[in-house]
Amino acid sequence: MMRSKDEYLDSVHSLDHLVFIQGQQINSVVENAFSRPSCMAMAETFYQAQLDENQDLFTCRSHITGERINRFSHIQQNADDLVKKIDMLRSMGRKTACCFQRCAGLDCMNTMYAITYDIDEKHGTNYHDRFKNFLREVHEKDIVPAACMTDAKGDRSLSPSQQEDRDQYLHIEKEEKDGIIVRGAKLHITGGINSHELIVLPTRSLKEEDKDYAIAFAIPSDTKGVRFIYGRQPSDGRRQEDTRADIGNLYFGGSEALVVFEDVFVPEERIFMKGEFDFTGPMIELFASHHRASYGGCKVGVGDVLIGATAAIAEFQGTEKASHIQDKIAEMIHLNETLYAGAIASSVKGYPTQSGAYAVNRLLANTCKLNVTRFPYEICRLAQDVAGGLLVTMPSIADLENPEIGQYCRKYFTGKKGIESNHRLRILRLIENMTLGSGAAAYLTESLHGAGSPQAQKIMITRLADIESVKKCAFSLCGIEDR
Amino acid sequence: MMRSKDEYLDSVHSLDHLVFIQGQQINSVVENAFSRPSCMAMAETFYQAQLDENQDLFTCRSHITGERINRFSHIQQNADDLVKKIDMLRSMGRKTACCFQRCAGLDCMNTMYAITYDIDEKHGTNYHDRFKNFLREVHEKDIVPAACMTDAKGDRSLSPSQQEDRDQYLHIEKEEKDGIIVRGAKLHITGGINSHELIVLPTRSLKEEDKDYAIAFAIPSDTKGVRFIYGRQPSDGRRQEDTRADIGNLYFGGSEALVVFEDVFVPEERIFMKGEFDFTGPMIELFASHHRASYGGCKVGVGDVLIGATAAIAEFQGTEKASHIQDKIAEMIHLNETLYAGAIASSVKGYPTQSGAYAVNRLLANTCKLNVTRFPYEICRLAQDVAGGLLVTMPSIADLENPEIGQYCRKYFTGKKGIESNHRLRILRLIENMTLGSGAAAYLTESLHGAGSPQAQKIMITRLADIESVKKCAFSLCGIEDR
Amino acid sequence: MMRSKDEYLDSVHSLDHLVFIQGQQINSVVENAFSRPSCMAMAETFYQAQLDENQDLFTCRSHITGERINRFSHIQQNADDLVKKIDMLRSMGRKTACCFQRCAGLDCMNTMYAITYDIDEKHGTNYHDRFKNFLREVHEKDIVPAACMTDAKGDRSLSPSQQEDRDQYLHIEKEEKDGIIVRGAKLHITGGINSHELIVLPTRSLKEEDKDYAIAFAIPSDTKGVRFIYGRQPSDGRRQEDTRADIGNLYFGGSEALVVFEDVFVPEERIFMKGEFDFTGPMIELFASHHRASYGGCKVGVGDVLIGATAAIAEFQGTEKASHIQDKIAEMIHLNETLYAGAIASSVKGYPTQSGAYAVNRLLANTCKLNVTRFPYEICRLAQDVAGGLLVTMPSIADLENPEIGQYCRKYFTGKKGIESNHRLRILRLIENMTLGSGAAAYLTESLHGAGSPQAQKIMITRLADIESVKKCAFSLCGIEDR
Amino acid sequence: MMRSKDEYLDSVHSLDHLVFIQGQQINSVVENAFSRPSCMAMAETFYQAQLDENQDLFTCRSHITGERINRFSHIQQNADDLVKKIDMLRSMGRKTACCFQRCAGLDCMNTMYAITYDIDEKHGTNYHDRFKNFLREVHEKDIVPAACMTDAKGDRSLSPSQQEDRDQYLHIEKEEKDGIIVRGAKLHITGGINSHELIVLPTRSLKEEDKDYAIAFAIPSDTKGVRFIYGRQPSDGRRQEDTRADIGNLYFGGSEALVVFEDVFVPEERIFMKGEFDFTGPMIELFASHHRASYGGCKVGVGDVLIGATAAIAEFQGTEKASHIQDKIAEMIHLNETLYAGAIASSVKGYPTQSGAYAVNRLLANTCKLNVTRFPYEICRLAQDVAGGLLVTMPSIADLENPEIGQYCRKYFTGKKGIESNHRLRILRLIENMTLGSGAAAYLTESLHGAGSPQAQKIMITRLADIESVKKCAFSLCGIEDR
Repeated sequence: MMRSKDEYLDSVHSLDHLVFIQGQQINSVVENAFSRPSCMAMAETFYQAQLDENQDLFTCRSHITGERINRFSHIQQNADDLVKKIDMLRSMGRKTACCFQRCAGLDCMNTMYAITYDIDEKHGTNYHDRFKNFLREVHEKDIVPAACMTDAKGDRSLSPSQQEDRDQYLHIEKEEKDGIIVRGAKLHITGGINSHELIVLPTRSLKEEDKDYAIAFAIPSDTKGVRFIYGRQPSDGRRQEDTRADIGNLYFGGSEALVVFEDVFVPEERIFMKGEFDFTGPMIELFASHHRASYGGCKVGVGDVLIGATAAIAEFQGTEKASHIQDKIAEMIHLNETLYAGAIASSVKGYPTQSGAYAVNRLLANTCKLNVTRFPYEICRLAQDVAGGLLVTMPSIADLENPEIGQYCRKYFTGKKGIESNHRLRILRLIENMTLGSGAAAYLTESLHGAGSPQAQKIMITRLADIESVKKCAFSLCGIEDR
Repeated sequence: MMRSKDEYLDSVHSLDHLVFIQGQQINSVVENAFSRPSCMAMAETFYQAQLDENQDLFTCRSHITGERINRFSHIQQNADDLVKKIDMLRSMGRKTACCFQRCAGLDCMNTMYAITYDIDEKHGTNYHDRFKNFLREVHEKDIVPAACMTDAKGDRSLSPSQQEDRDQYLHIEKEEKDGIIVRGAKLHITGGINSHELIVLPTRSLKEEDKDYAIAFAIPSDTKGVRFIYGRQPSDGRRQEDTRADIGNLYFGGSEALVVFEDVFVPEERIFMKGEFDFTGPMIELFASHHRASYGGCKVGVGDVLIGATAAIAEFQGTEKASHIQDKIAEMIHLNETLYAGAIASSVKGYPTQSGAYAVNRLLANTCKLNVTRFPYEICRLAQDVAGGLLVTMPSIADLENPEIGQYCRKYFTGKKGIESNHRLRILRLIENMTLGSGAAAYLTESLHGAGSPQAQKIMITRLADIESVKKCAFSLCGIEDR
Repeated sequence: MMRSKDEYLDSVHSLDHLVFIQGQQINSVVENAFSRPSCMAMAETFYQAQLDENQDLFTCRSHITGERINRFSHIQQNADDLVKKIDMLRSMGRKTACCFQRCAGLDCMNTMYAITYDIDEKHGTNYHDRFKNFLREVHEKDIVPAACMTDAKGDRSLSPSQQEDRDQYLHIEKEEKDGIIVRGAKLHITGGINSHELIVLPTRSLKEEDKDYAIAFAIPSDTKGVRFIYGRQPSDGRRQEDTRADIGNLYFGGSEALVVFEDVFVPEERIFMKGEFDFTGPMIELFASHHRASYGGCKVGVGDVLIGATAAIAEFQGTEKASHIQDKIAEMIHLNETLYAGAIASSVKGYPTQSGAYAVNRLLANTCKLNVTRFPYEICRLAQDVAGGLLVTMPSIADLENPEIGQYCRKYFTGKKGIESNHRLRILRLIENMTLGSGAAAYLTESLHGAGSPQAQKIMITRLADIESVKKCAFSLCGIEDR
Repeated sequence: MMRSKDEYLDSVHSLDHLVFIQGQQINSVVENAFSRPSCMAMAETFYQAQLDENQDLFTCRSHITGERINRFSHIQQNADDLVKKIDMLRSMGRKTACCFQRCAGLDCMNTMYAITYDIDEKHGTNYHDRFKNFLREVHEKDIVPAACMTDAKGDRSLSPSQQEDRDQYLHIEKEEKDGIIVRGAKLHITGGINSHELIVLPTRSLKEEDKDYAIAFAIPSDTKGVRFIYGRQPSDGRRQEDTRADIGNLYFGGSEALVVFEDVFVPEERIFMKGEFDFTGPMIELFASHHRASYGGCKVGVGDVLIGATAAIAEFQGTEKASHIQDKIAEMIHLNETLYAGAIASSVKGYPTQSGAYAVNRLLANTCKLNVTRFPYEICRLAQDVAGGLLVTMPSIADLENPEIGQYCRKYFTGKKGIESNHRLRILRLIENMTLGSGAAAYLTESLHGAGSPQAQKIMITRLADIESVKKCAFSLCGIEDR
């Protein structure tokens, strides 16, 4: 079964989970003005998968059930699968211009699939089968799981077990006969409030003394003891305004939440790691690598929209032929394609894991992401350069219809002949959304920190590069024979 | 007389001008939630000038009245005056972290003072005396004038007189016995809604056929026919929320407005240019140069606050000793000081005009501003890098007090030991304000376009540099004697 | 037959072509001190192809002869072939740290193969067969052809036929019964002096009036009327010094030459375009695209060596643990891998031409190259930063053996304990070679201009991006339905 | 007395010091092909000071002798003196396009003047008088002293006294009745081989255990036991070629040398620090600050020449009207003026020391220098971009006169009509010299490392910025009252 967009929205609407927004528990994430755009963005992943022209890009055959599934649930089997993932993400970015929140879950499933296999190989556990059972359910019911990784961390100079407050890292609080009780919190959970399931995994590489923190599992998002606290985004208040005229992106938006786990029960069959601390490093590294490559897909699609909006405003304002404007737009495209190239290359130069799941090239994935922490900022700067100062000085679009001042707004905000002020302001509001508003939270800050902050990529790049072999090349060329 | 902060606020409160915000005419710009921060920022220029320790930096003696005045109304007499202006702006930027809206008026007065003198010299007019009379009033009553420059422009490929709709550039609609009737609109008027007077000047260099557009004058902001339409800023809706907890910058903010002039009468004694199109170029260029240097003062002060906030969040989160964090903060300081250096150098390398007013070095002022169009974006990126992803995923600060979820917020958003979540979130909200919120409108987009977009600076730099003389240096060194 | 390294050197030694270096006609490009490193670099392409471990990367089966050939002569049949080409180039860059001069010929052959097919399709000519015959010879005899493209151009604001001196663009001077006489010159011919054949193609897109300039052909490099004038490189004089101690790169170097064609006869069977001006654009664009992607291979390999040398000097000087040093080396790797990603992505996202030859993705190839015009400069700056000032203040390595001062040099140029001064200086000389010497000509300036200057890439990027489709995405998201 | 250019050259010619170049002891630094350009560059500082139009900029009155002296020997008394120094350095950079080697001595004298005063104040020594006596001699005889700072350093993780080989840092080897015997070596000594005197100072901040290394003094450069070993520069071999045609910069060049002190006697009256380790930090920091500001003068002048050469080649090649070319040249000017602004601002915002000598603003001086470590690289990249690939593929200029190939070179290297090939190639050779040749050693690598590598500036910037005060600004704005 593949859900339709409406079926997805219904399923989330009827979820019985505890979600708080601005200090209020809300009834429906679908109906609430703050969270609705987030639901709509994810719903688009279901919608696109049902279009005829998207069958190859958005769907594929499950290697577990043999049925057609949404590619957002697929365990990649080869380089081509990885490339298609990137292209699907880019396509979704173009449709939504925001975070559609489904990559982390996807990348997490691919990670768990591979690492549970490796744990079993070494420790004789049966996590891989458990995870495959979970995955079968995901495939059969078209379930969206959110990945929950980042802990609160408390004092960053201390390890989990050294923290004064143990809850700063999610951990086993108690063992029960047929499962465990866990406690802690996960931050920045993308799409958490509108996902069906939560996959939880550790946030850092752990040592023996931190065994209790080495846990991974999946539970329904309306499990008892789980609470979601919505994170605000710039300009999100505009979603509540009557006209919604100044939102910029009319339909879509992302969301992140703090997810609190207060003595939550996890049944044994849903546990995928319990104490195998030696696999926390590999798990995190593989997840990070997959996810870092993903950013070279989704953010590139978002960048495409910003490039389109920028080209449009140049046209509306009659500056599109100016050589410096053309140069700036070319630069935006160039930077955006560079990000894309990183994601494609990391896909093509990937490798098969023992489990059969195909993994990205880690050096190239980190390279890709490190560029993602930089170029969107420059792309936004260029977009604002082309857009002009009106971007931050224009009145509400609603003012265009005001009986007293509407005439002035319409008259003085017209650009080149034949352009309606309304259209000019709408494009500017979209650019505002993406460079200074709720879209910027995803396109900029999340590009910086999502899947790991730049320093994390620098560290991995240093570790993954084969410095010794290039040193040898240098020695050989300058005649240092004996080193 | 120098007004106190409260006297300024009272004077603006009792202004009888027509101001529209989000489609509503408002009663008082001081009381309205959207516009109040703008009034408060400007009020701070009055407050600072009354502090004992600021007498040298914020006040000086009027060369017209001989009385002590706010330096924001001073005609600079020498390089030291220009340097002090920059230092005053930087100080104000530190106090408010926003646009305090008083530089454009100051730079405009210095420009009018110099150019009216030159017009009179050539054309035998008496604009300079008129302007001095106006200036005397400004000094005597401590009046704030806003500079009104940018026209709507319509089709940018056409000159003013070629426009289908003449009003796209402000112009003389009708001559009357003792004055003129003007019509048009001015965009992006900084501090317009909370200034006492408006100084209007042309937006571009004009030719003979555009004579009717070559006008400059000053009128009270509550003159009949003048309307202000407020420009929205990112996240400005938070100013209306009950708690105001998520505003970031609790007190201050800038504002821009569209100012419509619908058949507005300007009395003869307040006209400072009327038809002398040959001085539109010099007027604009001098104003732009002064104002471009100013950005190396105010934005540097704003940058100081962002650096302080970034250093603070690093400390709160326990990362301040990490070498990459230290490196990023050093880079922020470095970029910020580079901007400052540009403003100082353009002040010191200035020149006296015929009128006695001292002008900035134009090449260096343009260089300064071109850096201002770039570095704040990088400074913001670095601030976000150090701040971490919580910047865009944290709940409302108000949630800390919520009876059900407040405990979780307080618990999981604590950083290093001894830091209150409340403090951590407040600093993050300030960084959000400055990099993605209403502060970013001023610190980023306005840095890009205020006083002219980057391309305008590039053009001036090319024109002002003495390429021929450096070519000769090159020829002489490589032996091309005869060129 | 695949030539051995020595067979190649012998073949070039015995070439009967006219080569001038520093105003002297030389006897043997292999023996001359200036040109020998260029021969050695190309010889390495033969050497590597004979190593067992390189059979897959450096050789493949000719689709024409069915025999094993050097991959440097291969017509790529699919994406994997393109990827392997890039990996081979990177490998060669690592071996030689210079331009090994064989990519232009390779990329040119792939271009001619595809375009001659298209010309024949439209014009009913038989160029493709002629080219295949030439290619068969190349494959059978393991011949190296150099690509000759850039004309002298004279006044760049005029087209070829408008030039006062027709010879500024190579053209048909006279038609003969069984061939043509051509005249003109080609600049910057990489590896020209040590190649067996020259493939000549036009340098720009031509119109009907420039028909006589629309010619492509291949001739042996010792054809009557052909003269090579060697281009100097920075520090190339060190190749003539007795000790050769300060060369840095002991064995390899690139070379470019001016190739003059003074009434040179081209037999009909070697003509691949004659007047079909409508295919000059596609020919140049395809060649440029292939070649721009190649730069993401060879220059990355050169970058690898520089990274290795930089890591080595850090170790020798005891700074390798400093966090800022590690950060700089990580940045070098990051930039270098970004270049590589561009080449790989443009290969994978390529497309089959009508002829069967596989072409690169042109947008991504241009993106790749545009980064190549920037990053090597930053990589060199970082290398110099890590290397320290000794890079430009050290004496000749030969001074280490001088009886009077050798002791001081050995004593004071030792780095950390256990490091010989000799080794330290050698690595520094290699870095000097690559960032300021003859290696820099290839790694920097050639990266900038080879395969087209940055502006050429900007123009292509603008043309190749699908702006209309991303505009539509933007319109749809902000509610501009009817555009 | 102020020396003429010829008197300076004579004085250096007759110096009796031991100079080794490429393993040979040479007779005269003025006559030797390698070192002559270095002498000529410094001679130019004497020549310029004798021109009538330069009296204000290049000369001033000695505050010691009351006589007119070369400004290169002046103890700056106020901000204006510092500004004039920068302007003089920029002017010299324009004249020579290289390092003219006189700033380090100047900055060192200003440093010694101030610090000897402070030492005396604290320790009751009489170094200041000694130094003033030395300075009087400098002023009276127009002597050039070179500053000798950087030690060999051995293992950088160890302090001077911990080194296995004590000589890795210059130190007191033995005390004698009327002086001391010193031993060690100083690296990178700019202008050392053509200066009259050497001023030696420590290279790092020292602690008590390193007292023996805390020495500063001045001695004549032909003192017994002193040896100079010349440092090679890229392409320096071209100075020895018969025609010297490919040198690029026909007259000038810089030089650095290793200076070995083998048991050299220093008389007591020339010792300016002996054991006062507590002043090593301040001495180095003041010298570094002065010298870092200087780079915003000399390198800007060199940048001017490169900008001129780039504008000239654009004109010669007929591309000067292309918008992207104009943009690149504007960018070069912008970057160059930014450097200048840093030097001017650090001068104006300086402060008087206790001694009366005026010191630069240290934060701004470090900011200035940090930009100098970056922008020249980008300026060179842009110059090469505009210059085109011919920069590294053109033959020797001498080939233009060759009977057989000269005609081709002249014909095919002509640019736009009316431009001689000879002129085109000469300008290109100058650009080559400055971006890849011996000029690049000074304009690039020395810009990076001279007066301290970038990391040294980063550290100083962090230390000098008043972070606590900007944190307070942030706290106050976001409502963290009690911190």
